[in-house]
Amino acid sequence: MEHIRTPKVENVRLIDRASPRKCSVGTLYLSSTHTIFVENSDARRETWVLHSLVSTVEKLPTNPSGSPLVIRCKNFQVIHLLIPQERECLDVQASVLRLSRPERYVELYCFSFNPNLNKEEREKGWSLIDPRAEFSRMGIPSNLWHITPANSEYRVCDTYPSDLYVPKSATPAVIVGSAKFRSRGRFPVLCYYHRDTSASICRSSQPLSGFSARSLEDEQMLQAIMKSNPASEFIYVVDTRPKLNAMANRAAGKGYENEDHYTNIKLQFIGIENIHVMRNSQQKITEVGELRSPSMTDFLWGLENSGWLKHIKAVLDAGVFIARAVAEEGVSVLVHCSDGWDRTAQACSVASVLLDPYYRTIRGLMVLIEKDWVSFGHKFSHRYGHLEGDPKEVSPVMDQFLECIWQLMEQFPCAFEFNERFLLQLHTHVYSCQYGNFLCNSEKERRDMRLRERTQCLWPHLWENRAEYTNPLYRADHSQTQGVLRPQTSPYCFKFWKGMYNRTERGVPPHQSPADCLAAVREETQQLEEELSSHQERLAILTGTMPTARCTGASRATERAHRQTPPTRGDEVDALPQDFLTCTSSTSEVKRHNPSFTLPLVPPKGSDPDDLSACSDLESGVADLSSRSSSAGDDCKDPDSDEAASTTA
Amino acid sequence: MEHIRTPKVENVRLIDRASPRKCSVGTLYLSSTHTIFVENSDARRETWVLHSLVSTVEKLPTNPSGSPLVIRCKNFQVIHLLIPQERECLDVQASVLRLSRPERYVELYCFSFNPNLNKEEREKGWSLIDPRAEFSRMGIPSNLWHITPANSEYRVCDTYPSDLYVPKSATPAVIVGSAKFRSRGRFPVLCYYHRDTSASICRSSQPLSGFSARSLEDEQMLQAIMKSNPASEFIYVVDTRPKLNAMANRAAGKGYENEDHYTNIKLQFIGIENIHVMRNSQQKITEVGELRSPSMTDFLWGLENSGWLKHIKAVLDAGVFIARAVAEEGVSVLVHCSDGWDRTAQACSVASVLLDPYYRTIRGLMVLIEKDWVSFGHKFSHRYGHLEGDPKEVSPVMDQFLECIWQLMEQFPCAFEFNERFLLQLHTHVYSCQYGNFLCNSEKERRDMRLRERTQCLWPHLWENRAEYTNPLYRADHSQTQGVLRPQTSPYCFKFWKGMYNRTERGVPPHQSPADCLAAVREETQQLEEELSSHQERLAILTGTMPTARCTGASRATERAHRQTPPTRGDEVDALPQDFLTCTSSTSEVKRHNPSFTLPLVPPKGSDPDDLSACSDLESGVADLSSRSSSAGDDCKDPDSDEAASTTA
Repeated sequence: MEHIRTPKVENVRLIDRASPRKCSVGTLYLSSTHTIFVENSDARRETWVLHSLVSTVEKLPTNPSGSPLVIRCKNFQVIHLLIPQERECLDVQASVLRLSRPERYVELYCFSFNPNLNKEEREKGWSLIDPRAEFSRMGIPSNLWHITPANSEYRVCDTYPSDLYVPKSATPAVIVGSAKFRSRGRFPVLCYYHRDTSASICRSSQPLSGFSARSLEDEQMLQAIMKSNPASEFIYVVDTRPKLNAMANRAAGKGYENEDHYTNIKLQFIGIENIHVMRNSQQKITEVGELRSPSMTDFLWGLENSGWLKHIKAVLDAGVFIARAVAEEGVSVLVHCSDGWDRTAQACSVASVLLDPYYRTIRGLMVLIEKDWVSFGHKFSHRYGHLEGDPKEVSPVMDQFLECIWQLMEQFPCAFEFNERFLLQLHTHVYSCQYGNFLCNSEKERRDMRLRERTQCLWPHLWENRAEYTNPLYRADHSQTQGVLRPQTSPYCFKFWKGMYNRTERGVPPHQSPADCLAAVREETQQLEEELSSHQERLAILTGTMPTARCTGASRATERAHRQTPPTRGDEVDALPQDFLTCTSSTSEVKRHNPSFTLPLVPPKGSDPDDLSACSDLESGVADLSSRSSSAGDDCKDPDSDEAASTTA
Repeated sequence: MEHIRTPKVENVRLIDRASPRKCSVGTLYLSSTHTIFVENSDARRETWVLHSLVSTVEKLPTNPSGSPLVIRCKNFQVIHLLIPQERECLDVQASVLRLSRPERYVELYCFSFNPNLNKEEREKGWSLIDPRAEFSRMGIPSNLWHITPANSEYRVCDTYPSDLYVPKSATPAVIVGSAKFRSRGRFPVLCYYHRDTSASICRSSQPLSGFSARSLEDEQMLQAIMKSNPASEFIYVVDTRPKLNAMANRAAGKGYENEDHYTNIKLQFIGIENIHVMRNSQQKITEVGELRSPSMTDFLWGLENSGWLKHIKAVLDAGVFIARAVAEEGVSVLVHCSDGWDRTAQACSVASVLLDPYYRTIRGLMVLIEKDWVSFGHKFSHRYGHLEGDPKEVSPVMDQFLECIWQLMEQFPCAFEFNERFLLQLHTHVYSCQYGNFLCNSEKERRDMRLRERTQCLWPHLWENRAEYTNPLYRADHSQTQGVLRPQTSPYCFKFWKGMYNRTERGVPPHQSPADCLAAVREETQQLEEELSSHQERLAILTGTMPTARCTGASRATERAHRQTPPTRGDEVDALPQDFLTCTSSTSEVKRHNPSFTLPLVPPKGSDPDDLSACSDLESGVADLSSRSSSAGDDCKDPDSDEAASTTA
């Protein structure tokens, strides 16, 4: 491991941020993929930091007790270490810095992460979520919309998926002409079809209209979209940018639709700021969340000054506008921003979550992300800085989408099948590069990289562990859960996302969650139902009658099975570490959930823990550890572990 | 009714604040106690405004459509009316202004509110909550503490209750000497005894220490408090004021304990601001909550600028300090501010809520308010402006206590038996003067006014309707619920109390509450348990065995009975108007809950609704209406109504 200058440092202190006087002494190990701190205590608590999640590694001035090192992660977890010798500290800093800044895709964790799945299992994993099938689910009428072959082999637009739904009345000439008149060829295509009103959401990039240019084909394309919704006499064109930004684009030959040329459109600007404003804003809110002992004024002033909630509100407002147009007015909407892969993805997917209860389920959100983000060419690699590159390309676009969902969950606590933990896990994996899902910037790039053959898919892993991610307050049958969500978007309704930006550090007791409480109650109900049905059977036998199907209980059980809600664990959930990428856990906990990560660090029979770095190389890393762990004779399969993630999917 | 210039105005518009274009047309009635708006529609929706809750009545400039009148209530509800004629508007304004500013106690609503209870029922109501019995519940060891007869007939301190617990070792001379050395004679007495550690919370006013004065008796009193906790070698003296304020008091011969004179005390300042700062701060946060279409910046800047959450944090911090001292260090605490009836009441009662799960139940909170606030001479009449008087005496001291509990409920959603609605209802009644509980400024004043004979008690009314106020997430047996609550008090954990300061207006759909959701699940569980036990009985009969007590179910049922949790109503709760003092409701809803208020407005058999004001006089008001309603031949008893409040208590 050429990049690891020191594989192991002893007598390192891990400092508790919440109460800096508390700290634990232990050993720091560097593998090719993780930095691991193992406490000296009997519990041998471990803290794992995945290098691909590391954002910055800052060495503070050496003081008499040692050299402080602060590792900040892209999911806003922060690790404070105190390393006895300055030289060691510099070595650790240099090593982690280098390991956390891969220059080539092949250095990314997903290429070394190998959870012992065979080819068939891996492929099965990749087929769990299929965005193409999603268009069938929507119930698109085949007389009005169809898949165009125009983009096969990505001929017209290399950042779009190959399969695209367009109005049936749009001829190939219209499609090609429209594509030529749109930034990067991203012509208007179907994103979501709303069965109840026949209105649709389409998406594109900005038109190349400049101050006066026009394209008859592009105008015909918008006309075709309007006609695909027979009841409607116009469409909305939602330009998600601030109007000034859109106007400025005209000077570069881009801009927005001229209402004089496009008949029957209504243009609406929303005012979501660009990626640079968002990047700076998130930097500020992150700093607010990291303040040591802020006063109320520090906090509230910082929150306001960051502008973050204002931006979240803008994204949510865009979604609300679109959802209202589609569901209440029955009017189709074409959404675009500049390139149509950031703000457009946000607005379309937030609107979809508001419109369709399916996207508020665990599986539905996976599908939505695959469709609106992954397949439609959101530039994951650039936006989340997977490789060393232009820092101005980085921006928290997906973070904002996830936060919009979180804010909605706060308003509609029973409407989402998943919980906050699921959103945090998704956020972490957008950055982590542990799975192949979010690599590259387009479907074409991913295909060219053969990612499905070389990496694992995230979705089966999350699906396997959905018990952890289930919101027990979810009621699929609740009247407010079904149908369209109509959130309030007054500023009073937005909250600081503490779970994201001010993560509870270890040492602070976990707080009560209504979700955990309800999980316990649900479990109790289920037990009662089971007891009841066994009693009914006995009764039936004793009285000699046929067991009468108990309407409520039976239907409830069926519904549960149908929804595939896994059994909940009740209070135990409290104890789960939030994730295993940057996780802190005692040996026993880790054993229960994720043995492969920890076993090599707890040598079973006098083996030398110093072997660790020796066995870690660029292509194996932690995955190697896992193979060692099985050979060490421990329980070789744990259904909760990453390794088994897709075996039963 | 000399004060009612116009009993009825037709074609008045009630404007929806959330969407000003929406409004409903109807008739406005003025009775001696309420202003009532009745919609002209078939539903005849009614909006009731209790005059004693009215804070301001503002006439805006007349415009072509009429004269706008804005009625603001002390519970932060706001009613916007549009009255066709300016003259009528001025009449309504003058009438409501006069009716909402009583000058004598006898004008207050509680003296006319007569829910048809006989003397026995009323007296029984007043005995539901007994703060004296609470001291027995605490398990105070009689060898260390006892009731002193010193204050019988309020001889030593006329703002204290007559029964006071003091250390057994404090002689009458010490008590009297200490009282002479304390502002308004409020000498240190027991407020809460913590059985687990034998530490106690005592309360008093500031000492009259000036720059150098001392009192041996007062010093002995503190020594006696310390000795009543045998394990401890010192006590904390918590001065809840900012240190500068306490120092400034020395110039007036008051101040704080000199640590050179008092052996074995540790002095701690907390920094809760005075009533004037709090009044101004609440004024600002109220304005923030009332903003029409605030931007995120308006909201967050306003929130910060109000300072409100900073003050809430200070009160909670005081409680946390005291609770930690008592529960973790086992050290007794003497709490005081200046007079010992505002900040002291806040700090002691917040600490008690943190320390003792009993105060987190519906009954326990009633007891706590009776003990720490009502009996200990919190000046309700002055602080909540019950009568026209010095506006500088008004301050939201109790509001802050209730908000501290709300903030705790947000952190510990399963730890409180009651819900937000209960807190809002308590808040309303502190101001409403519908019940006699919060009249006057001390126990002595209330006794002199013979309030128990002349007014009704609030507690039975709330207790009767506790189904509405129950938090279904409450788990008495939860490990985090039992024992001491240890809240986080970093600024990140405080939220704007939307339910209080930005009440949802009508027209806006009610949002999902996890509580309502859980209520439904709980109900389901209960049904299952009942079915199960009936099956068990049948099984037992069929098999000829004794019915075996099913451990979980049976114990659960017992526990439920013991806690007296009423059956919950599930989703129906959504439909309940938040309160009946300033309530909006359709006729049918009101009938279910509160027939006496509405019946006269829906004349059963051609009676004239204009009679309304004629039958309302100063001493009867709505109560008169209720007697009319029974004679009108409708269902004469509704267990949900105010009238029946204490019959089954």
